[in-house]
Amino acid sequence: SVNPDLASERQTASFSVEKLTALLDGGAEKTRIRRAVVTAIESDPVFSRENQYFQTQNERYEAAVRKAVHLQKKMHEMGWTENGPEYQYIYRALSGDVAFLLHHVFMRSISVLGSDKQIAKWIPLATQHQLIGSYAQTELGHGTYLQGLETTAVFDITTQEFILNTPKISAMKWWPGDMGRSATHTVVFAQLYIHGKCYGIHPFIVQIRSLQDHSLCPGVTAGDIGPKMNFEHIDNGYLMLKNVRIPRENMLSKFCEVRPDGTYVRQGSQKINYFTMTTVRISLISDEVLTPLMKACTIAVRYSVVRRQSKLKPGEQEAKILDYQTQQEKLLPQLAAAYAFHFINDYLQELFDRGYREIQRKNFDMLPELHALSSGFKAMITHHCTAAVEICLRACGGHGYSLLSGLPSLYTKILASCIYEGENTILLLQTARFLIKCFMAARAGHPVPPSVTYLAAVKPGKCPGKSKLDFLNPDIYTEAYEHVAVRLISSTASKLQDLIQSGVKKHDAWNQCTVQLVQAAKAHCHYITVKNFAETVEKLETKAGIQRIMKHLCDLFALHGIFSNTGAFLHDGYISAAQMDMVTASYLDLLAVIRKDAVPLVDAFDFTDKSLNSALGSYDGQVYQRLYEWAQKSPTNKMSPAYEKYLKPLLHNTLSKL
Amino acid sequence: SVNPDLASERQTASFSVEKLTALLDGGAEKTRIRRAVVTAIESDPVFSRENQYFQTQNERYEAAVRKAVHLQKKMHEMGWTENGPEYQYIYRALSGDVAFLLHHVFMRSISVLGSDKQIAKWIPLATQHQLIGSYAQTELGHGTYLQGLETTAVFDITTQEFILNTPKISAMKWWPGDMGRSATHTVVFAQLYIHGKCYGIHPFIVQIRSLQDHSLCPGVTAGDIGPKMNFEHIDNGYLMLKNVRIPRENMLSKFCEVRPDGTYVRQGSQKINYFTMTTVRISLISDEVLTPLMKACTIAVRYSVVRRQSKLKPGEQEAKILDYQTQQEKLLPQLAAAYAFHFINDYLQELFDRGYREIQRKNFDMLPELHALSSGFKAMITHHCTAAVEICLRACGGHGYSLLSGLPSLYTKILASCIYEGENTILLLQTARFLIKCFMAARAGHPVPPSVTYLAAVKPGKCPGKSKLDFLNPDIYTEAYEHVAVRLISSTASKLQDLIQSGVKKHDAWNQCTVQLVQAAKAHCHYITVKNFAETVEKLETKAGIQRIMKHLCDLFALHGIFSNTGAFLHDGYISAAQMDMVTASYLDLLAVIRKDAVPLVDAFDFTDKSLNSALGSYDGQVYQRLYEWAQKSPTNKMSPAYEKYLKPLLHNTLSKL
Repeated sequence: SVNPDLASERQTASFSVEKLTALLDGGAEKTRIRRAVVTAIESDPVFSRENQYFQTQNERYEAAVRKAVHLQKKMHEMGWTENGPEYQYIYRALSGDVAFLLHHVFMRSISVLGSDKQIAKWIPLATQHQLIGSYAQTELGHGTYLQGLETTAVFDITTQEFILNTPKISAMKWWPGDMGRSATHTVVFAQLYIHGKCYGIHPFIVQIRSLQDHSLCPGVTAGDIGPKMNFEHIDNGYLMLKNVRIPRENMLSKFCEVRPDGTYVRQGSQKINYFTMTTVRISLISDEVLTPLMKACTIAVRYSVVRRQSKLKPGEQEAKILDYQTQQEKLLPQLAAAYAFHFINDYLQELFDRGYREIQRKNFDMLPELHALSSGFKAMITHHCTAAVEICLRACGGHGYSLLSGLPSLYTKILASCIYEGENTILLLQTARFLIKCFMAARAGHPVPPSVTYLAAVKPGKCPGKSKLDFLNPDIYTEAYEHVAVRLISSTASKLQDLIQSGVKKHDAWNQCTVQLVQAAKAHCHYITVKNFAETVEKLETKAGIQRIMKHLCDLFALHGIFSNTGAFLHDGYISAAQMDMVTASYLDLLAVIRKDAVPLVDAFDFTDKSLNSALGSYDGQVYQRLYEWAQKSPTNKMSPAYEKYLKPLLHNTLSKL
Repeated sequence: SVNPDLASERQTASFSVEKLTALLDGGAEKTRIRRAVVTAIESDPVFSRENQYFQTQNERYEAAVRKAVHLQKKMHEMGWTENGPEYQYIYRALSGDVAFLLHHVFMRSISVLGSDKQIAKWIPLATQHQLIGSYAQTELGHGTYLQGLETTAVFDITTQEFILNTPKISAMKWWPGDMGRSATHTVVFAQLYIHGKCYGIHPFIVQIRSLQDHSLCPGVTAGDIGPKMNFEHIDNGYLMLKNVRIPRENMLSKFCEVRPDGTYVRQGSQKINYFTMTTVRISLISDEVLTPLMKACTIAVRYSVVRRQSKLKPGEQEAKILDYQTQQEKLLPQLAAAYAFHFINDYLQELFDRGYREIQRKNFDMLPELHALSSGFKAMITHHCTAAVEICLRACGGHGYSLLSGLPSLYTKILASCIYEGENTILLLQTARFLIKCFMAARAGHPVPPSVTYLAAVKPGKCPGKSKLDFLNPDIYTEAYEHVAVRLISSTASKLQDLIQSGVKKHDAWNQCTVQLVQAAKAHCHYITVKNFAETVEKLETKAGIQRIMKHLCDLFALHGIFSNTGAFLHDGYISAAQMDMVTASYLDLLAVIRKDAVPLVDAFDFTDKSLNSALGSYDGQVYQRLYEWAQKSPTNKMSPAYEKYLKPLLHNTLSKL
């Protein structure tokens, strides 16, 4: 039975939840396929996550390996293939709780960087799991700055082998997933040396464990890096190599080859490699960033209409906490952001698909723009969504802090997305470098990529909004975002030029501008997100109430961004103080409007109870019952030796006195 | 041997680290005593935290109980007493990793709320650990709103007993520490009923476990609430009571008593009870909030001078990451905040000591102000410090995400401080209510408490700053903070009045202003913090470079607050756009200045390696060696059954093909 406080929220939905789910999925047929995958996975007890919050790191790892192996069987049974329509939903259905993710990166790196001969040899072996692959790039002492990697691969012309070494402790590979305990092979990135000359970073296939008994190969030291904030199910590992010899054929050689005589040959372009990294950044947004945020919103919103606390009006029943303005102001902007980022993700996916087609036609013109967008949006979205999940967690008070709420795990996992695949600050600075370049080009009248043509136009002006309703006009707020982005990019470009002209060295000048460059890059991404949301809403069908509610969310996302960062809009007077008060009024009004549809808006994300794995977020809203029943199963409710060992002696001999 | 990159940072300190440590401790003698306690605790292997990151919740609990029991012995051995000078340093020396904290709350509640007879009976038993106490207030369905608690205590005149019941699941006690597995007794808060009439919430001493064999008493259901985001060492518990009878003497009766004939007598004032809760909020700031932030700063700053990444200047060695402006902008404001909050904590402690003395003299005039300050500062400091620890964690990139960095545990623990002892949003609204009241009074010419007299003065004006150096003048920035606080309180008061005058009901009007009321309360606390920091700096001795570096930190704290919230200062033109550019310039300049002393500034916090328990933050900066050696000890580096069970069958029969 559904908690009546939750049930009543669903009766007044202003739109069709089912239609909104289909919109999010990209069509009703896709919804159908997704649900079929979810049902198949969730009905299989091997994939259960019920005990997850009680398990140790070792138990989580073992379960993830078991699931990965079982998944092969399951796919075969169900007739799912890697190219089929079901495939994209499997990982989401498993909530990512499965091993061998790096095995796929291993395969992708061979596909992209390997010669035809290497692909023909290794891909079938990997596909059939006749080996388990990993991807060893990051070192103890080096992450985002790849040129600094210290592992070496020296070509030995006499034996036609590469000799791999980890010359010092900071050169040890550190963090690669699946490498700590599972992998038999890995792609090692190392500095290539031929005849004492360094040719920079290259990828090498190295066997690290025996296929007979899984023991470490000679010269290999490897293991697990130990406990992390999350990812207990993954065996992130370390790897040291001491004079490990691999055949010349094991250097991935689509673009660079070492000939038998030691001649180094570079073939084709490495730009495509560069592009692969940018696509990874975009491809992770959906599963690793948006899904957790949508889950957190679902849990927090459902809980907020079930939890009653204190009285809003004297003499009445205690109020649902979602009826408090402060609670709405915590949660509803995060819900709006989930939709905003869903739509910008669609936009980015489409752009990257187009880019990929162009590149296949040997047209590399889009690369700088794609690199800048993938860097900036990865940083902006992961940052924003991580903060949003944390807000959802805190908004659930004490119960949000219980692992059984599901929120701590969502938070500790999404947090990693701010760090992996490029640290966010460094990525934003890459975007900023692109923006400054384009700004200079645009102002000099040169052509610039489509996403930055707005930089060419000089529009000083003032915001034309005259009433609080005007600020629900997408043209008004989109232009305000555009104005701020241009202003920040332009003022930082000026500062940079001034510094250089005053004699500061270029790299010092750049460093002295980086705090502001990061702000400029964020403003650019925020502008594009608002603009895209507004354009998406405009294109939606007006039926079934979908467009109306999406318009409200778009308005909320945009006005929340202004309300949270008023200084950027007030600074040059583009928005006046009186106008800012209108923005605030409209923003606060919107909270009360969207609050009415809050539960239907999270229902549309269509998560099952099993996928949420949360005592607070279940569809029926029976929070307290669930918390109580679940807690009783905790291993901490088994008898502890602490009583016999410590408590009994402490309390002993004192019985008569009470 | 100290990492040379770290050693070099210490050679150029602009001030005496030892003198600054003494200043933080409140004198060199206190430093000496603190160090003696730390040495005694850390040299005792029972108190070791070395394996903490590898342990399960059950192991953590057992270790915490063991430490709590051992601590009794240790204190006896060392001659430390609860009233001695050493006592205050013990908890910090243990890093809070010990059981029976709620036992002290149990004792305090009896001391404060119990009659002399009750104190005489129970305190000696508790002191000698002849029972283990807990404090059962929070319920599954009720936290901050105490009036809503649902547990009942019905007086049975025939047997002279109270009958305690948990009438529904939401009434179940939930969260009390030490109650899940350890406690034999607890103070239960329940609605008192006599002859069918409810007299509201009262405290009752209830035995929940046998002193013979620790089994649950008849009618008692209790256990552990399961895994949480942190506090694995604490057995937060649940408790259901079914017709549990306790003698009439077990209701704590200093202020309220039930006579044998069922007469209810209220004696004296309950205000003192109210005051006890406010002092708890202040007393937790030091150990639970400031210490974790100072540790996080120590770890992140030391790591940031040891970690080298990418090149600042072409052709040079890779740069220390603390040399990047963006890294300075992440960490140094958090370091400044740690000092700012240390000094405001001193101010609050002194104020509350004074308040306590007044109350003992039956003068309750300070109570409203003290309540408002304790609520607002608890919320503001816990919020700010939690965000700061998260920034430190992220600023360490991938290694910050390893539990071995120590940062994840600091973060997941400090996060709870935003929730416990009053949820922060609710606390800020209590402060706001006080501020609005005082504002109205002040404007009507009535006297107001000292901390809010500034609300009386109407100073429209503009900021007089004319150059970036002017913004290093504490008068200039303190007045700017004051101006913003007055503006936000005044404008929200106006909005509230306007709404009420336009016919909106009082409680609805209040709800519609709460987002802005929270902002106003934060602005007030921020202003007091800046003002107090500036006044503290002025009073410091000018010797040994201490005053100079503290002045820099005070400036940084103040300007960071403006830079991060420019809109509040720009809104009514108090600070102009041109002045804001000066603020920004001064702020960024300060980063480079303070960066030079960053390591000495964290060294002054004087944490030992054992208390940091961090591979990144040790005094010698041997980060990579420590990570590697520590990771090898992880239980994840023992043989896993996953190979035999899953990997071997998967890889089997494929050997010949490679």
